[in-house]
Amino acid sequence: MAYKKIPGGVTIPRGFKASCCAAGIKYKGRTDMAMIYSDLPCAVAGTFTTNKVKAAPVLWDMDVVYKEKTAQAVVVNAGIANAATGKTGLNICGQTAEFTANALNIPASQVLLGSTGVIGPNLPLDRITAGVTAMASTLSDSQRAGTDASKAIMTTDTVNKEFAVDFDLPAANGGTVKARMGGMSKGSGMIHPNMCTMLGYVTTDCAIDQALLQKAVSAVVADTFNMISVDGDTSTNDTLLVLANGMAGNQPITEEDESYKTFCEALFSICHDLAVKMAGDGEGATHLLEMRVYNADTKENAKIFAKSVIGSSLVKAMVFGRDANCGRILCALGYAGPDFDPAKIEVYLHGEKDTLCFYKDGSILSFDENLALSILSEPAVRFSCNMNMGAAEATAWGCDLTYDYVKINGDYRT
Amino acid sequence: MAYKKIPGGVTIPRGFKASCCAAGIKYKGRTDMAMIYSDLPCAVAGTFTTNKVKAAPVLWDMDVVYKEKTAQAVVVNAGIANAATGKTGLNICGQTAEFTANALNIPASQVLLGSTGVIGPNLPLDRITAGVTAMASTLSDSQRAGTDASKAIMTTDTVNKEFAVDFDLPAANGGTVKARMGGMSKGSGMIHPNMCTMLGYVTTDCAIDQALLQKAVSAVVADTFNMISVDGDTSTNDTLLVLANGMAGNQPITEEDESYKTFCEALFSICHDLAVKMAGDGEGATHLLEMRVYNADTKENAKIFAKSVIGSSLVKAMVFGRDANCGRILCALGYAGPDFDPAKIEVYLHGEKDTLCFYKDGSILSFDENLALSILSEPAVRFSCNMNMGAAEATAWGCDLTYDYVKINGDYRT
Repeated sequence: MAYKKIPGGVTIPRGFKASCCAAGIKYKGRTDMAMIYSDLPCAVAGTFTTNKVKAAPVLWDMDVVYKEKTAQAVVVNAGIANAATGKTGLNICGQTAEFTANALNIPASQVLLGSTGVIGPNLPLDRITAGVTAMASTLSDSQRAGTDASKAIMTTDTVNKEFAVDFDLPAANGGTVKARMGGMSKGSGMIHPNMCTMLGYVTTDCAIDQALLQKAVSAVVADTFNMISVDGDTSTNDTLLVLANGMAGNQPITEEDESYKTFCEALFSICHDLAVKMAGDGEGATHLLEMRVYNADTKENAKIFAKSVIGSSLVKAMVFGRDANCGRILCALGYAGPDFDPAKIEVYLHGEKDTLCFYKDGSILSFDENLALSILSEPAVRFSCNMNMGAAEATAWGCDLTYDYVKINGDYRT
Repeated sequence: MAYKKIPGGVTIPRGFKASCCAAGIKYKGRTDMAMIYSDLPCAVAGTFTTNKVKAAPVLWDMDVVYKEKTAQAVVVNAGIANAATGKTGLNICGQTAEFTANALNIPASQVLLGSTGVIGPNLPLDRITAGVTAMASTLSDSQRAGTDASKAIMTTDTVNKEFAVDFDLPAANGGTVKARMGGMSKGSGMIHPNMCTMLGYVTTDCAIDQALLQKAVSAVVADTFNMISVDGDTSTNDTLLVLANGMAGNQPITEEDESYKTFCEALFSICHDLAVKMAGDGEGATHLLEMRVYNADTKENAKIFAKSVIGSSLVKAMVFGRDANCGRILCALGYAGPDFDPAKIEVYLHGEKDTLCFYKDGSILSFDENLALSILSEPAVRFSCNMNMGAAEATAWGCDLTYDYVKINGDYRT
């Protein structure tokens, strides 16, 4: 490991500040807006929802990332998604960016926006701008400011999600420097592979070419955020943005060398941590669910198998009920799509200490039900499948399906 | 309508008998095996699960349908699926067919088998054969015998599912005859498009060429059983079989003429009724959910959109909670896959009496919340979407996601 985990989130890299406020958009008695600001303009890269119905802030950010390729501030609100809001929603984005630009004395084209919450209603522009004013005057580079920002963007999340690392890179003027990277994300429902499936913001003081940054982000997202599912619903608002301001003083990363590799490992560690945290904090979840598929013929197929198991309502309900009805894993592998020989695969259930093989040679094996119950009672339930076809592998993460998921989503708006 | 609904199920057509028994395979105090028998050999057609992990009776039936193309008896059990049972499971199929063949004095290759229940355990052959003996001696052509058979194959179903029609066809020797068709099915969980997704048996006394029968079955299944979803899980055991014994005395259907059209309409009516009943009887369901997509560019895309909405956990939970959080319909259309312009579509909620447009011109409209609540309180909740792209349409059926679904599936084996 070329990186080291350190406490904190988006304010850990040099030159990044954050703030938050209670703008009163939907929730009472809690913060619901966050701002991230960099002292210097940043190279920016991002991935966005593949949903054809894209929320207004997603359309706005795609313009910034694909055309400007640089940014200096991010403004996020929770409570209302600003999705399915037509031209009104886009106008609100434009006005919010203009207002933020004036408050921070930067161009509006350098402002990124994010929204999460109910689809349909319009954002109250007066409260948004009042929030921006409050946040612009309270920006701080403290670790606490980053943590508070990560809390302000939560909706049905039960825990805030942040992660930070540092890593050594060759300095611009000889020797080495310690570059830093921090991230925060939110996501609990409407979480399903097909782009980042949540709001996620990563900051770094590393100097890196924008095209390489985008390449790193796309590669890492494919194995992290795109491998989680809570409920199979790909949101209209999914956004992951990575901002790099270059203030670490490293020799700028301009090719796919060792430094780029180190950068990718650090980015992977953050995205992996945030993704698994989101899966485990799925709406109503009581267990993290992990499915690893190995010795598959291709990585693409390994991903399809792993995601199929993670997405199965029957597997998810069985994990909630701690019922080792393991035929459902087989069933989910079988309808995933890619071909395989059911007689040749092996399927396992892994606990902290014990591993139990429950399917081999085409048959469900008899197994120790007490051991299975004990493993299924652990907070993280891990399955694996040896496809015995090749050397590719993939892992997907999800959560169980619980009464509380139904409760939360049967009555989300109230 | 060239057909008329009549009471009853699989014993309604001439020459078909049924019986059932309590074989004690899993449940106590209820029947769990059913038999259908035709006095004459039948042309048989079928569709089967696309799951790569196919249960032993599915493999057995595929052999009968694709190679023999005729059959005379069906033996079904509930409680154990005989899936993921390897060679042992196939051997049990062979022995069950042999035993049934001896009891009925027909070739073993004319016996179809079906199983539904838990994946993994082996069927108790002694109880199965005792059941076959009991059923072979109690076959009856009464309407009641068909109804009892439809009850014996239930698992978590809460209501039995049968439907019958008659229809006029040209008689073999001039004039017209009234042909009959009856069906029964079971299915409540592990129900998702991709073949018939359940056990279904349709009998008819119509004389029809086997190749045409298969063509009719495949066409009808695509618009009925393949358009329902309870939980997105395609079972290992899905089987639909249609048996035609020719005893109506109609001029045999050997080409795609008017008689074939009439036959297809009758078959559609039965498959449609059974499919919608299964969707409405989804595990734990309190509402039938219907999504009609019209003016789509292609039928294939209309199906994909309709199925995406029906399959969305968030839409299903919202219907359970009677919460008109209609942005979730938009979201599910958006991630379905096919392209469309969100600014051009219209989405509606239909009650028995009222229709409410809640999305148009790219925005969620404000609507009467009390009216929406009243419509969402009806037993069947119907949505529709005008794509404004072409002339194709499709309808899919599902059910809401409830606490009871989680309860039933968190603790299925006990």
